Amino acid sequence: MKALVFYGAGDIRYEEVETPKPSAGDVLVKVKAVSICGSDLAGYRGGNPMRVGPLIMGHEFAGEVAELGEGVTNAKIGDKVSVYTNLFCGECAACKAGLTNICDNRYIIGTTMKAGSYNGAMAEYVLAPADKLLPLSGKRTFAQYALAEPLSTGLRAIRRAGDISGKTVAVVGCGPIGLLTIMALKHFGAKVIIATDVIDKRLEMAKECGATHIVNSKGDLVAFIHEVTDDVGVDILFDAVGIQSTVNQGLDIVRLGGEVIWVGLAQTKFEFEYKHAAVRELTFKGVYLYITEMEEGIELIEAGAIPVEKIITAEYHMSKGPRIFEDLVSGFAKDIKVILTND
Amino acid sequence: MKALVFYGAGDIRYEEVETPKPSAGDVLVKVKAVSICGSDLAGYRGGNPMRVGPLIMGHEFAGEVAELGEGVTNAKIGDKVSVYTNLFCGECAACKAGLTNICDNRYIIGTTMKAGSYNGAMAEYVLAPADKLLPLSGKRTFAQYALAEPLSTGLRAIRRAGDISGKTVAVVGCGPIGLLTIMALKHFGAKVIIATDVIDKRLEMAKECGATHIVNSKGDLVAFIHEVTDDVGVDILFDAVGIQSTVNQGLDIVRLGGEVIWVGLAQTKFEFEYKHAAVRELTFKGVYLYITEMEEGIELIEAGAIPVEKIITAEYHMSKGPRIFEDLVSGFAKDIKVILTND
Repeated sequence: MKALVFYGAGDIRYEEVETPKPSAGDVLVKVKAVSICGSDLAGYRGGNPMRVGPLIMGHEFAGEVAELGEGVTNAKIGDKVSVYTNLFCGECAACKAGLTNICDNRYIIGTTMKAGSYNGAMAEYVLAPADKLLPLSGKRTFAQYALAEPLSTGLRAIRRAGDISGKTVAVVGCGPIGLLTIMALKHFGAKVIIATDVIDKRLEMAKECGATHIVNSKGDLVAFIHEVTDDVGVDILFDAVGIQSTVNQGLDIVRLGGEVIWVGLAQTKFEFEYKHAAVRELTFKGVYLYITEMEEGIELIEAGAIPVEKIITAEYHMSKGPRIFEDLVSGFAKDIKVILTND
Repeated sequence: MKALVFYGAGDIRYEEVETPKPSAGDVLVKVKAVSICGSDLAGYRGGNPMRVGPLIMGHEFAGEVAELGEGVTNAKIGDKVSVYTNLFCGECAACKAGLTNICDNRYIIGTTMKAGSYNGAMAEYVLAPADKLLPLSGKRTFAQYALAEPLSTGLRAIRRAGDISGKTVAVVGCGPIGLLTIMALKHFGAKVIIATDVIDKRLEMAKECGATHIVNSKGDLVAFIHEVTDDVGVDILFDAVGIQSTVNQGLDIVRLGGEVIWVGLAQTKFEFEYKHAAVRELTFKGVYLYITEMEEGIELIEAGAIPVEKIITAEYHMSKGPRIFEDLVSGFAKDIKVILTND
């Protein structure tokens, strides 16, 4: 089969590789659409330890069952499926506590974890455990279904925040996760949704996704937020960036005693205004991946409740992958979400 | 009257000052016991912007009403009282939201805030607004009542944590706040209470206060915690230190998806392992002062439910103040809680 193989920083090749054979309990999925994630781009840049080449990336995808491994009874050839790409162990303390999203032993399709690498969906075919298949009706496009995975992270961020109905919130960073979070916030009834970014085009998209207010954070973001919120600050802040400046600025955007959801993970460590955070009695909640949120994301997409397709700005054939990665990383392409397809 | 006047780093003098006169709505309280807080010592060291000389420090105290200002009807001469030292404004957004502990306009007795300095209880007399008096039965000693204020911070930390009954917790740092938190955790039914510190004597005291396990954190703290918790980590971590090493080490002591309460404020800002914190789906909650917890602390002390006196290691006459501050800051004295009294 043909695949986009990542070898190292700046090096992705579209080439012939052996088509994998499903073992017992696995299925082979013919990839119909796979989306490029920011973490894939970070891998291409060489800055993501979760992408060690040679590796076929791609963890946001949908397709059709093409071949069944021994003993698989819950799927048949031609079924339209999405895949729960977080292959948790089910045995560790986190899994037993229901936190399969932070299982310490897991593989994730299209990434390199402590447990090892697992080839992903930037190829004609990808292997998946049959018990991780999520059935699709076919009412929506494969590209839409491919966005169930990033949507699920936005849904998990909202779940961690609790009831957001009627709340005043801000979303810092209008990349795909920020935009999908905005759509979900609108769906779940947030009253005021303030979106911030440094790129005006993304802010326009945020407005289309449901933001009630947009502001370029190159200006005086804190003053803007205080004006919109009668000098109180927002109830809940979703940081969909996760760097020193956004995390520390967030302390003055959220109201005293308010809540900050850390869903962006762009920086590993940095100087944090700890005392300022603590004396304001803020609550901070980390977010990672999803638990049941991927099934919920598919349900919302099937129902047409969250128009994920709004953020898809381009679709290309998989063979164009090497150029697309280069254009996105160099900044030549300004796309928000790019979908890759096979024939 | 005689008072301990703080002039600046290393300079506290026991000297004659004018006895204050209560204005309308205020009372004059004769100080019977005042406790030295770590934040007072930080002021003496010159490292606390909330102590600007000349200032009479002292915000943990109890005494008797000595004189009434005009219009005061809720107290009479001789009443035994504690004082709610957080003089919030009642008008700002935080106050209106019930978060009087983080009022932006408040004075705090014995400190210097943005609003200004307010002389405290390290003197024969201290002024207090009559509506901030908390009546005392007299069943307990004034020294015990003086500890209602630091106890209230431990109680607020536990309130922020939610239901701790049956939980496995760790308390990092066995200074007064850590020890009072341990007593309150025992009272509210925590199942396993692991106390850590670098000073063995404080760990022995932690055991007396209710810790089920003690460990000197100069050793391998993470390994110890994992041994005690079957490799899971604690449900809730109370950081009663608040420096770079305790905050970051805490990430590996608390279980995946667990909760960290930031009650210690020893360091203003530092490098924080943000991504490690977020991907473990931890929740962090800042804590500051108290809201209703001071009344609750007095109730618990009155009922004999929390034996706060355990941590009092010395009592001196106020006139010894200058030497005591010097001995505590130099490390010559190893006391945990020192009470100062008048004649």
